Amino acid sequence: MSLVVIGTLAYDSVETAHDKRENALGGSAMYFAVAAAPYVTPQLVGAVGEDWRDEDTAMLKARGVDLAGLEVVPGGKTFRWGGRYEPDWNTRHTTFTELNVLESFDPKLPAGYDASKFVFLANAHPAVQMQGLSQVKDPIFSVADTMNLWIDIALDDLKALMQKVDALILNDEEARMLTGENNLIRAAQKVLTMGPKIVILKKGEHGAFIMGEGLHFSLPAYPVTEVIDPTGAGDSFAGGFMGFVAKTGDASPGTLRRAMLHGTVAASYCVQGFSVEDIGKRGLGDYDERFNELMQIVTL
Amino acid sequence: MSLVVIGTLAYDSVETAHDKRENALGGSAMYFAVAAAPYVTPQLVGAVGEDWRDEDTAMLKARGVDLAGLEVVPGGKTFRWGGRYEPDWNTRHTTFTELNVLESFDPKLPAGYDASKFVFLANAHPAVQMQGLSQVKDPIFSVADTMNLWIDIALDDLKALMQKVDALILNDEEARMLTGENNLIRAAQKVLTMGPKIVILKKGEHGAFIMGEGLHFSLPAYPVTEVIDPTGAGDSFAGGFMGFVAKTGDASPGTLRRAMLHGTVAASYCVQGFSVEDIGKRGLGDYDERFNELMQIVTL
Repeated sequence: MSLVVIGTLAYDSVETAHDKRENALGGSAMYFAVAAAPYVTPQLVGAVGEDWRDEDTAMLKARGVDLAGLEVVPGGKTFRWGGRYEPDWNTRHTTFTELNVLESFDPKLPAGYDASKFVFLANAHPAVQMQGLSQVKDPIFSVADTMNLWIDIALDDLKALMQKVDALILNDEEARMLTGENNLIRAAQKVLTMGPKIVILKKGEHGAFIMGEGLHFSLPAYPVTEVIDPTGAGDSFAGGFMGFVAKTGDASPGTLRRAMLHGTVAASYCVQGFSVEDIGKRGLGDYDERFNELMQIVTL
Repeated sequence: MSLVVIGTLAYDSVETAHDKRENALGGSAMYFAVAAAPYVTPQLVGAVGEDWRDEDTAMLKARGVDLAGLEVVPGGKTFRWGGRYEPDWNTRHTTFTELNVLESFDPKLPAGYDASKFVFLANAHPAVQMQGLSQVKDPIFSVADTMNLWIDIALDDLKALMQKVDALILNDEEARMLTGENNLIRAAQKVLTMGPKIVILKKGEHGAFIMGEGLHFSLPAYPVTEVIDPTGAGDSFAGGFMGFVAKTGDASPGTLRRAMLHGTVAASYCVQGFSVEDIGKRGLGDYDERFNELMQIVTL
């Protein structure tokens, strides 16, 4: 079934202990769409500037991403983000942020997108996420991502959004910040009292878990032996997760449990290259192969 | 089948952010034996001093631990260890160590123990572990634990021991220190080139994995919502793991995979109390209940 993603596209400058990239394709909605594309045709809603490169449009189209919702802002410049990772990967420093076209981003869904049954609100200001969600008529399953910045400066908007979405996806640091609970199980339980019926908590290299009424499933990460760049791993997790859910067409506990493995697979390909250099080449055959391998590792 | 454990007994002084205990029952072999006791009768080999308390002997006997190998050293004093945990539990400071009777610990297996089929060499000097192992005639499955101190000051002894045991169990920090590999999968692979056919890598609150030829199984920790004291969690993991393996009577990949869940269950009870205050009260019914709960959380 149809899957719409509303969020950011970016040009990222990323430095790791081993290598770096300048102005590499990035952004929350971009990573999500590339990760979900083997399962469904993601409908991407986002804004870029006049500096947006034709080759990036071509890559996303070739990947099977629907770009009817890609707005090129006249006179605008694409969002830029810079980051540097410590050798242990656990610490990331943001070196710069240029919002550019995001300063006035007001998502408008193209004709037909309002009928989408699965909605992912990739990381963006929660008021923007709400604006996007409100245009979808009758979703079966809507999920929002967020980040520490919004918990810090737009908590009321985030709380309002949490009343409207079916699920919230966030990482360990964000969960602790949002709830004030250090223990992640208690943090997840507290998120469930704030609106969403379901919470998906990502722990990076330590895996992820999903929790809701009658639902609790936890799994380790796929054992990647060489991480190249963790940027976008969380968005790719969400893309693999939601892509599988949308393809299956329901949000039953059984589907959501299996979807956690698909998210794990997508994230594992993402971190094997800068930008979407690795995951962008991975088709359904690669996804299936690693899904089966992961099944061997995580089930009795 | 029979399970012998050789290692330490201690009186620990532990301080957490919330509470503390002075001279609480501790030690690697003690935690292991208490954790394994619901499955088999652990044969404990270790030394204590004249200050050893009768109540601790009584508790271990009531738990079903065979104490024929407990040596009370005349004029000796029991090993003492002090530790303090940071509020996030991830950092532990050793506040003091008094080796006492451990300075001259030379394990001697009582009559009959030499026929034991399953052997656990709990954390101790690797030369002591070797001395213990050499007295067991024909074990089906032998596992050694270690710690950063021995990697630092007794690496040659540890390397010699690794040639003799079937499996090595260690935590993430120890694995990185022993192999020089930051990535834990690569670290585990490197351990497998150093002698043992199997490696079990514990990651604390992030779970554990087991790896060997044709064997790779990974699982998250049981979701404990209130940790009281993590001391002994790794030894308890090993106890639950080896207790189940010894009860089953084989070390096939299928048994070892299931045993990882039993180890996880034992560790989860251990951290719910100081010393063995919680796990010491848990019988097979508790173990089974939590095993089934964990199965729901980790399998599709």
